[in-house]
Amino acid sequence: MDLTTSPLGTRMRAEVEEVLRQEILPRHFDYVDATAQGGPSPGWLKQLRTDAKAAGLWNLGLPALGAEDPGTRLSNLEYAPIAELLGQVQWASEVFNCQAPDVPNAAGLLPYVDAYQRERFLLPLLEGEVRSAFAMTEPAVASSDARNIATRIERAGSEYVITGRKWYISGAGHPECDFLVTVGVTDPDSPPHRRHSIVLVPMDSPGLTIERDNSFLGYTRDGAELQFDEVRVPVENLLGEQGGGFTMGQVRLGPARLQHCMRLVGACEAMIQLMRHRSESRTMFGKTLSEYDGAQHAIARSRVEVDQARLLLLEVAWLLDTAGVKAALQKLSIAKVAVSEMAMRVADRAVQIFGAKGLSEDTPIARWYAFARVFLIADGPTETHLRQIHRLEAAPDLDLPPFLER
Amino acid sequence: MDLTTSPLGTRMRAEVEEVLRQEILPRHFDYVDATAQGGPSPGWLKQLRTDAKAAGLWNLGLPALGAEDPGTRLSNLEYAPIAELLGQVQWASEVFNCQAPDVPNAAGLLPYVDAYQRERFLLPLLEGEVRSAFAMTEPAVASSDARNIATRIERAGSEYVITGRKWYISGAGHPECDFLVTVGVTDPDSPPHRRHSIVLVPMDSPGLTIERDNSFLGYTRDGAELQFDEVRVPVENLLGEQGGGFTMGQVRLGPARLQHCMRLVGACEAMIQLMRHRSESRTMFGKTLSEYDGAQHAIARSRVEVDQARLLLLEVAWLLDTAGVKAALQKLSIAKVAVSEMAMRVADRAVQIFGAKGLSEDTPIARWYAFARVFLIADGPTETHLRQIHRLEAAPDLDLPPFLER
Amino acid sequence: MDLTTSPLGTRMRAEVEEVLRQEILPRHFDYVDATAQGGPSPGWLKQLRTDAKAAGLWNLGLPALGAEDPGTRLSNLEYAPIAELLGQVQWASEVFNCQAPDVPNAAGLLPYVDAYQRERFLLPLLEGEVRSAFAMTEPAVASSDARNIATRIERAGSEYVITGRKWYISGAGHPECDFLVTVGVTDPDSPPHRRHSIVLVPMDSPGLTIERDNSFLGYTRDGAELQFDEVRVPVENLLGEQGGGFTMGQVRLGPARLQHCMRLVGACEAMIQLMRHRSESRTMFGKTLSEYDGAQHAIARSRVEVDQARLLLLEVAWLLDTAGVKAALQKLSIAKVAVSEMAMRVADRAVQIFGAKGLSEDTPIARWYAFARVFLIADGPTETHLRQIHRLEAAPDLDLPPFLER
Amino acid sequence: MDLTTSPLGTRMRAEVEEVLRQEILPRHFDYVDATAQGGPSPGWLKQLRTDAKAAGLWNLGLPALGAEDPGTRLSNLEYAPIAELLGQVQWASEVFNCQAPDVPNAAGLLPYVDAYQRERFLLPLLEGEVRSAFAMTEPAVASSDARNIATRIERAGSEYVITGRKWYISGAGHPECDFLVTVGVTDPDSPPHRRHSIVLVPMDSPGLTIERDNSFLGYTRDGAELQFDEVRVPVENLLGEQGGGFTMGQVRLGPARLQHCMRLVGACEAMIQLMRHRSESRTMFGKTLSEYDGAQHAIARSRVEVDQARLLLLEVAWLLDTAGVKAALQKLSIAKVAVSEMAMRVADRAVQIFGAKGLSEDTPIARWYAFARVFLIADGPTETHLRQIHRLEAAPDLDLPPFLER
Repeated sequence: MDLTTSPLGTRMRAEVEEVLRQEILPRHFDYVDATAQGGPSPGWLKQLRTDAKAAGLWNLGLPALGAEDPGTRLSNLEYAPIAELLGQVQWASEVFNCQAPDVPNAAGLLPYVDAYQRERFLLPLLEGEVRSAFAMTEPAVASSDARNIATRIERAGSEYVITGRKWYISGAGHPECDFLVTVGVTDPDSPPHRRHSIVLVPMDSPGLTIERDNSFLGYTRDGAELQFDEVRVPVENLLGEQGGGFTMGQVRLGPARLQHCMRLVGACEAMIQLMRHRSESRTMFGKTLSEYDGAQHAIARSRVEVDQARLLLLEVAWLLDTAGVKAALQKLSIAKVAVSEMAMRVADRAVQIFGAKGLSEDTPIARWYAFARVFLIADGPTETHLRQIHRLEAAPDLDLPPFLER
Repeated sequence: MDLTTSPLGTRMRAEVEEVLRQEILPRHFDYVDATAQGGPSPGWLKQLRTDAKAAGLWNLGLPALGAEDPGTRLSNLEYAPIAELLGQVQWASEVFNCQAPDVPNAAGLLPYVDAYQRERFLLPLLEGEVRSAFAMTEPAVASSDARNIATRIERAGSEYVITGRKWYISGAGHPECDFLVTVGVTDPDSPPHRRHSIVLVPMDSPGLTIERDNSFLGYTRDGAELQFDEVRVPVENLLGEQGGGFTMGQVRLGPARLQHCMRLVGACEAMIQLMRHRSESRTMFGKTLSEYDGAQHAIARSRVEVDQARLLLLEVAWLLDTAGVKAALQKLSIAKVAVSEMAMRVADRAVQIFGAKGLSEDTPIARWYAFARVFLIADGPTETHLRQIHRLEAAPDLDLPPFLER
Repeated sequence: MDLTTSPLGTRMRAEVEEVLRQEILPRHFDYVDATAQGGPSPGWLKQLRTDAKAAGLWNLGLPALGAEDPGTRLSNLEYAPIAELLGQVQWASEVFNCQAPDVPNAAGLLPYVDAYQRERFLLPLLEGEVRSAFAMTEPAVASSDARNIATRIERAGSEYVITGRKWYISGAGHPECDFLVTVGVTDPDSPPHRRHSIVLVPMDSPGLTIERDNSFLGYTRDGAELQFDEVRVPVENLLGEQGGGFTMGQVRLGPARLQHCMRLVGACEAMIQLMRHRSESRTMFGKTLSEYDGAQHAIARSRVEVDQARLLLLEVAWLLDTAGVKAALQKLSIAKVAVSEMAMRVADRAVQIFGAKGLSEDTPIARWYAFARVFLIADGPTETHLRQIHRLEAAPDLDLPPFLER
Repeated sequence: MDLTTSPLGTRMRAEVEEVLRQEILPRHFDYVDATAQGGPSPGWLKQLRTDAKAAGLWNLGLPALGAEDPGTRLSNLEYAPIAELLGQVQWASEVFNCQAPDVPNAAGLLPYVDAYQRERFLLPLLEGEVRSAFAMTEPAVASSDARNIATRIERAGSEYVITGRKWYISGAGHPECDFLVTVGVTDPDSPPHRRHSIVLVPMDSPGLTIERDNSFLGYTRDGAELQFDEVRVPVENLLGEQGGGFTMGQVRLGPARLQHCMRLVGACEAMIQLMRHRSESRTMFGKTLSEYDGAQHAIARSRVEVDQARLLLLEVAWLLDTAGVKAALQKLSIAKVAVSEMAMRVADRAVQIFGAKGLSEDTPIARWYAFARVFLIADGPTETHLRQIHRLEAAPDLDLPPFLER
């Protein structure tokens, strides 16, 4: 298991870091203030994107990227350290067209699009001209059991007709969102894993409305609630084969999960740096915070956990690259559980060390804290992944138990 | 230690519960929607307050309330079960003029006001005509060590001149907020505990500005940041004696802490009910959530913790009533630590059981979750209270250690 | 809910404390050394018991004690603070004939014995002339589900014939153990809760053998494994009615559980004192341990938890006294979960502060640590009690959920 | 960072596994019973050792092993997976002369011995003819701060005279223990890190006595308490240079720590297998344990933690091999904290799933549980390592904090 990145990976990481330090970090609070009240991204973001694309620092998170596609193809192992870096600033991924949910959507489309779908949906996404969203979770059912998804997609002549309600559809509320990768039931009488299909639904389709923007702990912009009232799309918008939604969803989720996790590790590394800085500059009862073992332990425990999580993600990346998503399923669930809980603890310690400021907008900690809490339920709650990890345990070692128990 | 309430307490609780069930609960989401975007309280709230006041369900949280003051005086032990009830709905306390920070402010004023201060500040507060705020915490120092408070209050002739910056001043942003109970340094050369004083500062004082409203995890309205630029108040606005700020602050904090805790226990009881309801109505992988021992344990563990916390608070109430705030200091810190951490765990379980909805505005859970997180740092962070609990341990048992260690 | 003890309770506690301080504590390590290698109790213990009995400090843990029985009858609420005191020294209860499993056995026998059983079994126990054991748990089944108990008790003429295997039968290995309160299946075809009966089995019955003494984490003397090979007892040895074993078991368990918990609270209080003493006398990296917030927090958190647990147990005692064991079932499970987990944490902190010595025999901490770990599974594992607490939740509050969720 | 083992490592691991499965596992309870009452190792162990040595499966844990020394030299990365395997049976390491404390002692001697010391002490150890012990920790001081070590080693002519008391000296009580690697103060007036020296002390030296064998939670054989009363050794027995004890101690500790951790990971892997086996074969309330999400989560969480710990240890092994112990110091502390706490949690879950049996001698779980608890304090308590991790944090990232906090 060789976890070393390649020369290309090393170079890309260095170039991304240069942009991060020179162009992104100094503009961080500009971005925060511009978007605080739900306002649009600041104008300079477009220029940064143009520059990054020109430099080939584009679409780095897509191991399936074609030679003819815009951007630079990196393997998961090459991209992992870059994703970590991008995680240090909440909006940095956008500069390099590496943002969720567009990357997972592109990853999900790449193996399945036909020529029409490639032209109409995938390429604009890869070029960075539009945004997209993934419409799966529903308010009326426990979506952590994907078989509960109830939105109907019915064939009617040359069209599919979609009826249902989706919520917490991250990205759907973005002003540039162009289409939804939509999961629903096409074949209710098939076996549970063959009932769902994916159709690509333009945002301006009649019958499709954004009803409201739900919040996560007071933060908005990722909680769009969508109503599909007999929304019609041509059958050409079916992705892959009918009934194949479940399988395609899995293809999409692997790298999505890994990248979310990697960015969170970067956020946690940044929080360690913030805690160190704060604990050395604040005084309480006559000592700097860093002289209290409470603060020392908060930082040291975060280091213990971050270092383990990073290694685990490198292993997952390596496994995805060398053995594919199916072989990596248990490890992906392990990573999801480990990283989300680790991030929750690190963010919690950072809040405690920063006090009220840690819950304000004067540091990125509060948003990371909220995201970590969301991530304990999003992309499958911890309980579902634990169930999955248990289910995917290798065949038991038949030699040990009989000799170790009497 | 008799923890039974009185007949008056029993009656008041029943009457409050009646209002809660008939008038408050059915209007809950009306209130949520009206105030969601920072809008004012709905008009009917004023009427509910008028009705409650007329019924004597008013100022229930003030054991020091005088016979001639409006409302009904209850002891801490009588009020505790009522506070728990009010905690089930985030805004219910307002109906009965039992809301923070006005009750703690009134409690802090009652023993110290002179005739002028009573007429000008205290009475309008007790009558429910105005709101108030307590201006202590500052952005530039670790306010958990109260001796760090740095705002200057300087005597200049017949006035005090106040210069400094305060933040996270809960209530200061309320449109009806009339005055600030302001803590600052008057005597920088006195011993640490005799340096601070409290002055009453009208909100419309020249030089006093609300700079911004900071958020807690995306929620606003409790994070006003105030600038004092040579704000002048007459010396008559000094509360109690100069240099006595520290002592007066403590008087105020005891019941404030108890009432926050009691309301949180009520919120947790409500979350238990919500978890039960949800776990019996949601299905995952072919079973209701309540058939999973994960959900059963979430509810049962919450019960274990809520029942202990409630008892502890009754003991603290009894102690405050029978022995006073000084005798209760260690128990108050114990209660603060125990209840804030308990509430965090209960809210966290509730979120996990509700999924995304648990972080939305479609239940009160998300706000309770956020408040629990805030409460781990507000009113003294956990670490400061643990330090205090250790410091206040009784004289060691000198018999035990020598005989139990060799 | 009045949690005050009576004048009798106060007096008894003071007298027990006097004996503890004068006679027991100074002999603690004598006892430890004498019994270390499985040796018998030291000779002076008999004299201490004689003295205690003469002073009426005897059988204090039996609220059902008759007027004519030896010793002083105390209610649960009166005994609770005494049990806590006794918990400070592992063997102190024996001095006052308050030791498990004899007290729970006596409590279980008191309401059911007939004249013969009273004379033959109960009275010698109350007089302190013999010891007893409760033979329920079995190696072959999950005994936490009591309906799994499989030992057969078959009627054959005027006798019951017992066949089966029991283990971890605390007290059965004691040299003075005279009889076993034995649970087994008499009516395999009855409904699950009516299948079991209890018979009283003399230790010298032919066919009854102690096969081995199992250990708990290296400690022995509580893990006797018993083989019943067609052991015969007269039908007169049936306790209560045939098929009533389940109900009788519950009667026995309530006070047993409460007393175990109370003693553990006493042990934890002693560990707080030991931690304080140690942390003030040890130096590391130039500071006493007590100057580190780690040690301060260990002590303060233990205080937070011990104080809550004590209150909870007083409430359970009061509930048992005023409403009976059935009404207290949920609270008994709550207490079991809360106290066992609390004791585990306190003992763990004490070990960490004492280092290797905390795991040695030079303090009582190691045995308390081991007992706390045992108590997380003994008397029903945590998981079974959580299941029970969930099952016994009161009828749901039907008003709240519909108004707090939309 | 290539974490792949070599062909030699792969082959050695396969051969060790063969012995483990064929010869060791079937004899496990033979060994447990033979040594239960403090008895000597069973006779067949000697034969297994002879066979292993003949097969070259000997001294595998010594990367500094010379070409002429007995056994097969493996790097840390090659040995790590073998150590994990050996950890599955508590006594398996002895078969291959890979047991602590002899391996760390040999590792500590290898770089420093002169010809005499090599012949007299090191070679017999490598040949497996004798055992040894490391005498550092003392009862009177907090040994986690190594500078507290107080035993005096005074030069007197051609001898060193040693006076002091040591305890918990693992291995000193072994009947074949031949010598002690002893740490004490030779230069009390030098700077703190230059005060200590190491001398090699034969067990039969006059004045050296084993006073008692302290227990860890009821288990004995690792807690020898030694008295040095003017014990005299020739100056030739000084290891390395006088005053260099601190540095030499560090050389020894690195691989010792790694190997302890690796074996613990193996123990945890075995506990996962035991939990799986048990949970599928026990029934409670009508379901197998494995159908409860409690048991599923216990196994899945253990998997999450074991997989991360294993990776971390491979990284540490790689770091030791490629960069040396000094470069690995922070990671070694990280590994110590992570693995000890992980093992405690895994063992705790295993006990809970096995019930009383999990605390008995009928599985290895109880001893692993006890060892995990010991390991939280042995080899430096968690708190000391956290302090160390904090101290060894890399230079802070100076770019991030100023841009992420305002």
